[in-house]
Amino acid sequence: MRHTLIKMTKLHCLADICLIPIGTPTSSVSEYVTKVVEVFRDSGLKYTLHSAGTTIEGPWDEVTAVIGKAHEEVHAMGVVRIQSDIRIGTRTDKHQTPEDKVNSVKAKLERNLKKEYKEN
Amino acid sequence: MRHTLIKMTKLHCLADICLIPIGTPTSSVSEYVTKVVEVFRDSGLKYTLHSAGTTIEGPWDEVTAVIGKAHEEVHAMGVVRIQSDIRIGTRTDKHQTPEDKVNSVKAKLERNLKKEYKEN
Amino acid sequence: MRHTLIKMTKLHCLADICLIPIGTPTSSVSEYVTKVVEVFRDSGLKYTLHSAGTTIEGPWDEVTAVIGKAHEEVHAMGVVRIQSDIRIGTRTDKHQTPEDKVNSVKAKLERNLKKEYKEN
Amino acid sequence: MRHTLIKMTKLHCLADICLIPIGTPTSSVSEYVTKVVEVFRDSGLKYTLHSAGTTIEGPWDEVTAVIGKAHEEVHAMGVVRIQSDIRIGTRTDKHQTPEDKVNSVKAKLERNLKKEYKEN
Repeated sequence: MRHTLIKMTKLHCLADICLIPIGTPTSSVSEYVTKVVEVFRDSGLKYTLHSAGTTIEGPWDEVTAVIGKAHEEVHAMGVVRIQSDIRIGTRTDKHQTPEDKVNSVKAKLERNLKKEYKEN
Repeated sequence: MRHTLIKMTKLHCLADICLIPIGTPTSSVSEYVTKVVEVFRDSGLKYTLHSAGTTIEGPWDEVTAVIGKAHEEVHAMGVVRIQSDIRIGTRTDKHQTPEDKVNSVKAKLERNLKKEYKEN
Repeated sequence: MRHTLIKMTKLHCLADICLIPIGTPTSSVSEYVTKVVEVFRDSGLKYTLHSAGTTIEGPWDEVTAVIGKAHEEVHAMGVVRIQSDIRIGTRTDKHQTPEDKVNSVKAKLERNLKKEYKEN
Repeated sequence: MRHTLIKMTKLHCLADICLIPIGTPTSSVSEYVTKVVEVFRDSGLKYTLHSAGTTIEGPWDEVTAVIGKAHEEVHAMGVVRIQSDIRIGTRTDKHQTPEDKVNSVKAKLERNLKKEYKEN
């Protein structure tokens, strides 16, 4: 017997998804990744496509709804089985965008290069 | 401007989550994994704990709500940043439980062993 | 121009792999997962099959060699594209087996249940 | 008893790694991600930093050695426990770079937009 109804959280999150269709006629997945990107674009949430997945940002309930919608749409293309790997992060100490994360690493790479240069 | 409200899907899914707290005083994570398991148990959904994560099964909207609840609860323990890796699968061709998946592989392992035995 | 030859580390690790064949005629993956388990078994390393993947334990160089061998063997079965998700952990503070990890969580679940019981 | 020595494969692969230090004093991980990028850069292999991980490309033995080296170097910074999520893909049908993957999706997005435009 189910005794609790969990309310969907509004926690802000960054999710990165790598969706893989199983049992497709060819080894190309770009047709399906395109559909994922289109669902993300239509959601109005911020997203970025990169070579190992697609990143999407927003409240937990909306982000997970959009990823679920992507599964539904890829099933509607005739794919009977889908496996996704999702890396999802939440933090309560500060707001950080995907660009902030990359810029923070780039600044440190530059700082280290300057330090090395001075030491030599 | 946000133009669409995505409705959360009811698609049945199997999700396996590995939750990692960041910036904790010790390298032990079992206190937090325990919380995840307790949230899963209280949800009424079927779940299994294993050494590399915890598997949970049910409709997409409930499963993702429960995982979000786990993030909230771990934040409430004082963890300001959490990163989870989620493997999530959906299929429209047939219903398959976590036990079905393991049993299917075990049957094939046994079949191959018998074949090898006969060939030698 | 490549300037460094990286020496493979002997660092002890726990790796959990979920291997997905792409472009296969059916949506069943158990034939391929069976092959992965057989490669792991033949390696002599400790491994455990569960519903969301297979865990393997040992020195980094051997574990990654065995996973690479699994990719090779699944390709040899006629699969032209494979995508794996690997969760891999290393620690220098103590040795922990997959069973240790599960037992640590189970002990805390039991402790919390006893505490709740006393409080009520 | 260990009975087999697995030879490390030379299979070409694309790996995307998200490395997480556990038990660090702060919730910031950029110092450690910077180290990962520096190890990748020093390897001479092709790599790309993005907001959800770092992608590296090359023969299986070198790629996994470089990732192991990154774990070693982050341990050397004082982190006693590290958990990484690695998405790793191999294919025997054709060679595809990370840029090829992104460009293939972008071309299809554009094609679909043109189609929609014509239909309206």
